Amino acid sequence: MSFGLGNLPYGVFSRAGEPRRVGVRVGDHVLDLAAALGRDVFAAPSLNPFLALGRTAWQEARGRAREAAAAGDHLIPLTEVTLHLPVEVADYVDFYASLEHASNLGRILRPGEEPLKPNWRHLPVGYHGRAGSVVVSGTPIRRPCGQRPSFGPSARLDIEAELGFVVGVPAPLGGRAGAFEDHVFGVALVNDWSARDIQAWEYVPLGPFLGKSFATSMSAWITPLEALEEARVEGRSQDPEPLPYLTRQTPWGLDLTLRIDLNGETVSTPSYRDMYWTPDQMLAHLTVNGAGLRTGDLFASGTVSSAGQPGSLIELTWNGAEPVKLPDETRTFLEDGDTVTITAWTSHGMSLGEVSGTILPAT
Amino acid sequence: MSFGLGNLPYGVFSRAGEPRRVGVRVGDHVLDLAAALGRDVFAAPSLNPFLALGRTAWQEARGRAREAAAAGDHLIPLTEVTLHLPVEVADYVDFYASLEHASNLGRILRPGEEPLKPNWRHLPVGYHGRAGSVVVSGTPIRRPCGQRPSFGPSARLDIEAELGFVVGVPAPLGGRAGAFEDHVFGVALVNDWSARDIQAWEYVPLGPFLGKSFATSMSAWITPLEALEEARVEGRSQDPEPLPYLTRQTPWGLDLTLRIDLNGETVSTPSYRDMYWTPDQMLAHLTVNGAGLRTGDLFASGTVSSAGQPGSLIELTWNGAEPVKLPDETRTFLEDGDTVTITAWTSHGMSLGEVSGTILPAT
Repeated sequence: MSFGLGNLPYGVFSRAGEPRRVGVRVGDHVLDLAAALGRDVFAAPSLNPFLALGRTAWQEARGRAREAAAAGDHLIPLTEVTLHLPVEVADYVDFYASLEHASNLGRILRPGEEPLKPNWRHLPVGYHGRAGSVVVSGTPIRRPCGQRPSFGPSARLDIEAELGFVVGVPAPLGGRAGAFEDHVFGVALVNDWSARDIQAWEYVPLGPFLGKSFATSMSAWITPLEALEEARVEGRSQDPEPLPYLTRQTPWGLDLTLRIDLNGETVSTPSYRDMYWTPDQMLAHLTVNGAGLRTGDLFASGTVSSAGQPGSLIELTWNGAEPVKLPDETRTFLEDGDTVTITAWTSHGMSLGEVSGTILPAT
Repeated sequence: MSFGLGNLPYGVFSRAGEPRRVGVRVGDHVLDLAAALGRDVFAAPSLNPFLALGRTAWQEARGRAREAAAAGDHLIPLTEVTLHLPVEVADYVDFYASLEHASNLGRILRPGEEPLKPNWRHLPVGYHGRAGSVVVSGTPIRRPCGQRPSFGPSARLDIEAELGFVVGVPAPLGGRAGAFEDHVFGVALVNDWSARDIQAWEYVPLGPFLGKSFATSMSAWITPLEALEEARVEGRSQDPEPLPYLTRQTPWGLDLTLRIDLNGETVSTPSYRDMYWTPDQMLAHLTVNGAGLRTGDLFASGTVSSAGQPGSLIELTWNGAEPVKLPDETRTFLEDGDTVTITAWTSHGMSLGEVSGTILPAT
């Protein structure tokens, strides 16, 4: 069964006329945790109060959820609920951790130059995105307008297939974070929609802004780290060896395969296993300057591209030069009405759910 | 009297053992608004519930606060209270709106090239910062560590004197913001602390990250737009003429002078009047792609530099080449124990309060 007792991802749902609350997915049902476990922390409109409790509480709740799911009580068919943004996002950070993606973009955007900037192999490059425009899977995505540099709707609307890491336990400002598993609750799928034409004009010298801030989609279900034990692998080897603060303490590479479907056709299946920077390194870097963490912080991996399997259309179509063939048409960038669905699985076949969105025309 | 009845900035305070609540500064006192006006919205630990009410409510509260202040009731000496971060910051955006600052940094960082990038006169360049590291004036600032590119404490710790604009009324995701004065409640002073060595190594190609995210200080008092009527001026002329969505509808240039004191010595007095992009243009740009607004969003102007009066040490010392003379010493960048205080006034002598911070050694 998909979404079996070894999975049990967390989300926020509501039934018609009822308030939002926390549930766990079991097959095609949601287990009503507030009802099943009788705890106030689950009668909340986001996962944040539960996330703040920390790993011991997360593990205890997971054990009790498994018992309740096995008992079969308090299960509501998914068809009877609406799923909501699971996390009240505090700060949203996006990294750039795929060697293939960074190299491809370097070749496309700066032909004739060394594809990677000098810093790339020394630190996980990242930047802050807009927390307020993170939306749940299924939310329609309005095509943004902006300077391309002439003003109008983006003509180069793209996707970025990513993994997102959800922070539960805070770290104080001025201090440093501890171990990855002491702060991070779990993993979401993320589509960091990108307007390449807006981004190309605006991003020098301070980075992406309006080319990204119109919407970022995340999956409705957050997979707890405990469910990913079987997927953990050594991270990709790194040269040069990273500085001590970036040393991997324990394996947080993840053997996952993503699948990108465009209007129902699979266009790419990037492997997360090949990412250059692992999420524990991202967390260590993010906080080494004393930035601190808050419950609800979300940091994403950046586009997951592996050899021959890119995580964005700009790579897949080589900046529009090589359109993707669909059954009855081709695509360079996204057209109005297009639907993109990103799914992911472990090599053992466990699902990480999906993040999906359909493009609405510009207004 | 400083902070007279024409000023009345808003903040959040507490007395020993009592919860945080909203007050208005009157001279050297704080007017306890919850007690004076008897409204729950002021018995809150941040201004956000009040900010969400919108301009009509803001104007009505201002009138009633003025009456209460004139009556002299519910006034508590500032010496008896602690001031807190006034706003629960949703998203923090930093612009780059001073022609002198952008030109100076171009000359310093890219000598021999055209100082301004091609986009600079066409849009207010901006990027997202870290909302979770915004702290109230007076909070000590821990010197950050990071890759410079060798690892260690920043040796080029700098300030950026800015104005910050606090959003009250939200705009929906996918839509556009209305008029500046329909969304923005008021103005704060901001010091966007910057580790120049960390920033220089990390910022290509995705912009500033750890070089900024360790701390951003804001004033404890937010000056409502109504108090700044006398400071409003036409914005600086722009060439080329901006695109229609950036057209100024009504004057939101502000005739303010900032003063930067380093260990009690004034080192620069930049004029805000000379900023190239006005805050109404920043808001229009920020939301033109459908990014939306949330109550508590903070967007800052970027460093306020005017001719001969820069708003950062990297400009004032020309990247350390021309140290600033203090009575008994010199400075290139900040040393441990240094205190920076930024104040601002209208040409009529009305104060916008201060933002201050002292550097603690790295840990």
